[in-house]
Amino acid sequence: MYYIGVDLGGTNIAAGVVDEKGTIITKDETPTLINRPYGEVLKSMADLILKVIKDASLTVDDIKSIGIGSPGVSDKNEGTVVFANNLNWHHVPVRKEIQKYIDLPVYIDNDATVAGLAEAVAGACKGYDSSVTITLGTGVGGGIVINGKPFSGSHGVGSEIGHMIVHVDGIECTCGNKGCLERYSSATALILEGKKAAKANPESLIYKKVDGDIEKITAKVVIDSAKEGDETAVKIFDNFIYYLAMGIVSVINAIDPAIIAIGGGVSKAGGFLLDALKKKVEDHIFYKDLPYAEICLAELGNDAGIIGAAMLGKVL
Amino acid sequence: MYYIGVDLGGTNIAAGVVDEKGTIITKDETPTLINRPYGEVLKSMADLILKVIKDASLTVDDIKSIGIGSPGVSDKNEGTVVFANNLNWHHVPVRKEIQKYIDLPVYIDNDATVAGLAEAVAGACKGYDSSVTITLGTGVGGGIVINGKPFSGSHGVGSEIGHMIVHVDGIECTCGNKGCLERYSSATALILEGKKAAKANPESLIYKKVDGDIEKITAKVVIDSAKEGDETAVKIFDNFIYYLAMGIVSVINAIDPAIIAIGGGVSKAGGFLLDALKKKVEDHIFYKDLPYAEICLAELGNDAGIIGAAMLGKVL
Repeated sequence: MYYIGVDLGGTNIAAGVVDEKGTIITKDETPTLINRPYGEVLKSMADLILKVIKDASLTVDDIKSIGIGSPGVSDKNEGTVVFANNLNWHHVPVRKEIQKYIDLPVYIDNDATVAGLAEAVAGACKGYDSSVTITLGTGVGGGIVINGKPFSGSHGVGSEIGHMIVHVDGIECTCGNKGCLERYSSATALILEGKKAAKANPESLIYKKVDGDIEKITAKVVIDSAKEGDETAVKIFDNFIYYLAMGIVSVINAIDPAIIAIGGGVSKAGGFLLDALKKKVEDHIFYKDLPYAEICLAELGNDAGIIGAAMLGKVL
Repeated sequence: MYYIGVDLGGTNIAAGVVDEKGTIITKDETPTLINRPYGEVLKSMADLILKVIKDASLTVDDIKSIGIGSPGVSDKNEGTVVFANNLNWHHVPVRKEIQKYIDLPVYIDNDATVAGLAEAVAGACKGYDSSVTITLGTGVGGGIVINGKPFSGSHGVGSEIGHMIVHVDGIECTCGNKGCLERYSSATALILEGKKAAKANPESLIYKKVDGDIEKITAKVVIDSAKEGDETAVKIFDNFIYYLAMGIVSVINAIDPAIIAIGGGVSKAGGFLLDALKKKVEDHIFYKDLPYAEICLAELGNDAGIIGAAMLGKVL
């Protein structure tokens, strides 16, 4: 049997046919065009699902279930998106709409949660009973898997690792609080600090790499500059790693997963990031002499959304 | 059938016979005398267990299992205390030692974790599938229950809520890190801040309540002064609540339990503490319009240790 995984984003909807092992057989995407009524968006989603099934030379009868990873909070029982800020959706009956067109079980969960499930089933966390996948992008996302199942708490609002508060009264967050982890350890934070530092230090490599065009500074520019030893960039990177390590120490002290995978765009910095992070966590772990979570890089990249959503039908 | 629960502390060992519902039938305690070899401590524990069984007019045949709540980290499979700082125990084979004297299954878990289990089975969190019990005492302890079972992670080092970092580079903690929750929201923190403030403000009620004998300042003195509206004490109490609320927001954002119970000595402040805490959490919760954990006072007090340890044999 096969599973459909859908990665619902603010810009695109991606869908794929996935096998038992979490391998994508076919995949495709279509623009979300989020300003349409949700019924139209979900009609496009259903069409896309039927297309990838056909592309795989399969029929609906070969498919066990449809899984959807959505931003925000979902009600798994009702099959609804309860609230998704960047879709501007409130209480959207996703399952009901999709089942108008396709008669299959429909599962839904948070996008970062299903990305964590993907890593647990077919990626970096395969073979571990519990894991936390931390996605470093515009924000910081969290996907928790416990005993092989996605975990987002009793009300579905958990696993928001990026909104754990690591610095009371720290930097203001988009969520209204101050000092959330994602204000210090996201791509956004690296870019912001990179811009500030480049303005203040035109001799820095960050400034040179963008030929003085501050707006071109990306997380990659900052990290690459740090890799090359630029003092300004190293300072920013070290602070980024320090806060991320403190967030991970809190995750370990609270949840103690078997393994923690670092994903998202920033994780492309690879070993440079991972080595620095592991060292910092090791320096600050609570029980110094006892085993704790392995820390590694996520493996599935953007495919994690489709794979994890598909695997909801396997593990639930 | 009945269960034995043992609360192993640095000063005393308490043991009780507990019924299916988590009610203590008989209980007693004996000094730990922790400087003895562990074999002697555990012989005393076995003697105490046999005594409380006899006190209940039962025999070993009426008992299903023995559960032990220990400080530090335990290996549940091996039945050992892996590391407990305030017992100075490393890899102590508790199960094996107890079974020399009593032929029953022996379970072992962290003391704060079993206190959380007690609240889940027979106290404030009864009827909820997941809960976090936060114990405000000398430190800040955490007991996580998920799907009715005690949760302390993959390596048994989780649920250390007091060592979640809420203020990177904040106040130094006994664990070697800086900014752990328990540095701001324990009885110890209240006492420390109370002493500092009383010294600086001899006109404060805190100072008056101890007749100027700073060393007599307790958490209760500070909270009682705050209750009576003393400006100095209110400031300390508000800061205490603020940090605790931020820690709880992090717990909700990460774990999203159905209910959070506040226990430990400081929780005797009752509604005064609870109301302030709930208000602060409400102001800072991530998803403002969605349901999140109920927050309440723990109910079982010191008995939680015995009851929760006993219930290990019921839920595992």
